[in-house]
Amino acid sequence: MMIKKKLKNKFPSELRMDLVSNDWVIIATGRGRRPESFAREKREKEKASSKDCPFCKEDNIKEKVARRDKKDGSWFVIAIPNKYPALSSGRQLTERKEGPNRIMNGFGYHEVIITADHQRPLALFSQKEVEMVIDLYQARYLDLIKKRYIKYISIFHNHGKSAGASVAHPHSQLIAAPVIDPDLRGSLDGAESFYQSQGKCVYCAMLEWELKDGQRIIYQNDKFVVLCPFASQVAFEVRVYPKKHQPYFEKMTEDEKWLFADALGKALNKIYKGLDNPAHNFYIHTAPAGGGDYNHYHWHLNILPKTATWAGFELGAGIEISTIEPEKAAEFLRKAK
Amino acid sequence: MMIKKKLKNKFPSELRMDLVSNDWVIIATGRGRRPESFAREKREKEKASSKDCPFCKEDNIKEKVARRDKKDGSWFVIAIPNKYPALSSGRQLTERKEGPNRIMNGFGYHEVIITADHQRPLALFSQKEVEMVIDLYQARYLDLIKKRYIKYISIFHNHGKSAGASVAHPHSQLIAAPVIDPDLRGSLDGAESFYQSQGKCVYCAMLEWELKDGQRIIYQNDKFVVLCPFASQVAFEVRVYPKKHQPYFEKMTEDEKWLFADALGKALNKIYKGLDNPAHNFYIHTAPAGGGDYNHYHWHLNILPKTATWAGFELGAGIEISTIEPEKAAEFLRKAK
Repeated sequence: MMIKKKLKNKFPSELRMDLVSNDWVIIATGRGRRPESFAREKREKEKASSKDCPFCKEDNIKEKVARRDKKDGSWFVIAIPNKYPALSSGRQLTERKEGPNRIMNGFGYHEVIITADHQRPLALFSQKEVEMVIDLYQARYLDLIKKRYIKYISIFHNHGKSAGASVAHPHSQLIAAPVIDPDLRGSLDGAESFYQSQGKCVYCAMLEWELKDGQRIIYQNDKFVVLCPFASQVAFEVRVYPKKHQPYFEKMTEDEKWLFADALGKALNKIYKGLDNPAHNFYIHTAPAGGGDYNHYHWHLNILPKTATWAGFELGAGIEISTIEPEKAAEFLRKAK
Repeated sequence: MMIKKKLKNKFPSELRMDLVSNDWVIIATGRGRRPESFAREKREKEKASSKDCPFCKEDNIKEKVARRDKKDGSWFVIAIPNKYPALSSGRQLTERKEGPNRIMNGFGYHEVIITADHQRPLALFSQKEVEMVIDLYQARYLDLIKKRYIKYISIFHNHGKSAGASVAHPHSQLIAAPVIDPDLRGSLDGAESFYQSQGKCVYCAMLEWELKDGQRIIYQNDKFVVLCPFASQVAFEVRVYPKKHQPYFEKMTEDEKWLFADALGKALNKIYKGLDNPAHNFYIHTAPAGGGDYNHYHWHLNILPKTATWAGFELGAGIEISTIEPEKAAEFLRKAK
């Protein structure tokens, strides 16, 4: 009896199933860290001076959003081709077999989206500034979605060396690929099967409950909600969802972009303040390009702060271990200013 | 024309589909690193002295394998309960709903498997020593597989801080969980569907072709083969497969364990020598515990050297970017001594 009680209090861990992917995750708070302790112990010295920065002298501009409040037409955010692309478009898309394996050449597009200031991260942008970045995400998306072969466009942002940012200057990336990514495929399948059995969008069902329950909500405005997901995969995972059902990121209206900028800016700022500017990744999951019935899908943005190194269990077993309850993470971030 | 040619030579990237999961990965060698450059630039100072090491003074031993060549009965490798378990067994397994979500309590077992020497990594063990570790993996597996509720047992090893090892003293971990992990579930499904359509094990088909082709083979003995997978997810990913079809790791015979120890030891040693002792994770994927027809599955061990930080595209799009061709990685490791 004593042992049971002790264990119960000391390690109140839980297994939780993600509604969409049906993946189970472990919420193990027994590792016992308070939210404050996730702040980085020391700030990494990764700021190359702007003199040596490849993005500070960029002139191979593909598309830009000018700083509208300035008369000189200087740019605030630009898109350029990635100098080291993971995919490139100079050839046909071809497929062949090698033994039992299928191979395609690496057809696609890989662009970098850069904001002018060498130092200032998105987390410190004004709503107007975040909106300019989103405008460019959308513009590049709408251009590349028309290209042949493209089935999916991934938009993502790495901040900090330990989150994989190889250049300190704030930048996002956009990769247009001829295949639908497997993670998204899993979510699409999960959303479709929920729709077939329950007759509604799984994300809408989740949001309805989350907004009523309130525990995991960090912030909301008229059109967007920022929350820690019920079955978070990493500590302080944060997602931004449109409240109204909408499969396609790229169909956001001006009005919606303005409020998405508000929600994303608030989310990033709270993470910056609460966790002392941690390294993080964020990315958009949206219904694939080019036809297909994806009306059951609901686009959103995921933010993954880097507060721990992924280790063997997460890599080997696929069951992620998050070391703080999503409710406590949300409460902590809700208060961060 | 000029541009096409330039792109073709500079970025010969490929998309490759994993036969089992049907996931596509990008092999992008355009990032242009030679195998040698993956070696860690500097060795992290993570060796706490053995005086402060929690594993050097462990006495809460659950099971041990004694050093057979010593008369004093001193242990070479032990299993102990994890002091900070992700899952623990002091309660019933219960499930409840919260809104639309399912929750189970964190029932399970979490053990640590420790070798006596504070410094020496598995990569420098003799075949006999590796065999002793495998013996204990198997013994703990066979004990925990009998416990109620347990559906899957994950055995994994983290080496180096950047691979998530929080204690420098070499150790492996074992987590027995009441759910089948989603990564394995995906592999089981993929293997089952291949079996249904092709009438054979997907891993046997792959191995037959790999052994004939030879390009990605690093090492083999009578019963095991070490190779870089065709659709590697990370640079220098290495897998160890039994040549003969066998779903269950725990059913290895004495003879097989001896040769598995040879193969695993060689694999780890070549990575250690070739990549200058990089951080890495390894884990075993084996058919789940407790019934079910898993005869289409084929157990194996995966090694993931940590030569790059995972970033947004990998996290967000699920399409991994590996920065060296598996054929070149295998060639490099084959020669490493």
